[in-house]
Amino acid sequence: MEIKPIAYFRSPLKSKFGVPRQSGIATQLTGSVVMCGKWGDAECVRGLEDFDYAWLVWGFSENVSAAKHPTVRPPRLGGNRRMGVFATRSPFRPNNIGLSAVRILNITEKEPIEIIVSGADLIDGTPIYDIKPYLPQFDSHPEARGGFTSTNEWQRLDVVIPEDIRQRLGASTCEVLTQLLSEDPRPHYHDDPERIYGMPLDGFDVKFKVDGGVATVIELGTDIRA
Amino acid sequence: MEIKPIAYFRSPLKSKFGVPRQSGIATQLTGSVVMCGKWGDAECVRGLEDFDYAWLVWGFSENVSAAKHPTVRPPRLGGNRRMGVFATRSPFRPNNIGLSAVRILNITEKEPIEIIVSGADLIDGTPIYDIKPYLPQFDSHPEARGGFTSTNEWQRLDVVIPEDIRQRLGASTCEVLTQLLSEDPRPHYHDDPERIYGMPLDGFDVKFKVDGGVATVIELGTDIRA
Repeated sequence: MEIKPIAYFRSPLKSKFGVPRQSGIATQLTGSVVMCGKWGDAECVRGLEDFDYAWLVWGFSENVSAAKHPTVRPPRLGGNRRMGVFATRSPFRPNNIGLSAVRILNITEKEPIEIIVSGADLIDGTPIYDIKPYLPQFDSHPEARGGFTSTNEWQRLDVVIPEDIRQRLGASTCEVLTQLLSEDPRPHYHDDPERIYGMPLDGFDVKFKVDGGVATVIELGTDIRA
Repeated sequence: MEIKPIAYFRSPLKSKFGVPRQSGIATQLTGSVVMCGKWGDAECVRGLEDFDYAWLVWGFSENVSAAKHPTVRPPRLGGNRRMGVFATRSPFRPNNIGLSAVRILNITEKEPIEIIVSGADLIDGTPIYDIKPYLPQFDSHPEARGGFTSTNEWQRLDVVIPEDIRQRLGASTCEVLTQLLSEDPRPHYHDDPERIYGMPLDGFDVKFKVDGGVATVIELGTDIRA
């Protein structure tokens, strides 16, 4: 089946690195769904303002080739245990389809329509193939067993941002950065306290280190992609 | 983007008519996800048995052409009020992608793997493009506002199945049929107590009428598609 984008995602996150591993983790992170072509008509979203959440069906645009392996190594399991690809939400899948529940904050009145959302785990430029309203009666199963994701607690990091960097970033970007770093965006296996990581965020290249359970921001560069 | 089926759905429901309008409505209705090709390997679902629900991303295979209209008329609104296509779960969408949370009942050991599920709103033969585990921490928002689906109560029907027909159908098919008919599978606007409808189920062509708030099964034929 051939599917075509009906929208693109706009996010302060310009690269895969640092993107939350699930929707709903970085609740302070806002982005927008920019409708394209005829789907930018306000009629297409009539009634959506009365829903709190929407599903985005999107494409993992940074994965050039689809998964060839039946198993993947989820970061939550430390990257050294394999799970079936259909038992994980890994981006390396037979079809590069992502699924995220995002909170609807606002819908612009001007066409083409933009839907402002929070909690998305999509990078800037991600193609979106469908938007569906979240139906709490059918989509919500709070009592469901969540397999390995329920039993393996993700180790969160404490986050230190020096005062001068806080001032340059501003309060709301600081809040987003704290949420993103607390989720430990490092690749599996990495455990080098001297290693400096760079995360593009909001036009900055945020440099940080991780030592034990603490992520410390050390410098702000300019994101050349911004 | 080109996507390819990784599985097909097997269901006692052979046609669109009578299929529940959302997943989770007909909890007694079981079906199976039959994995295809290399995705039939047991490794592909390793760990899935520890999840209660899975998302199926599937294709509305009975819709030959994709939606051209920005709005649709949801049956829940009586079929005479229009909503934006992205504010509904209507099958008439720009991309023919369906999304359903189904309960995992069992996973076969024999390859190709079959995942036995309940509550699916997919007809027999539906192509499935992805299976993702349901993550209650991220996917569950029981407090969310559900727009027009929360405020417009669906009128359920009482269901009458004569004793002789009950015996021919058997107890479990009767239970499924009761759930399906109670959801009022008639097309919008129909309100003719003399009209006879046929719903293919489990090899039978179930004939019924609806008068007021009561659906009555009147006859069992043979489903020629079965």
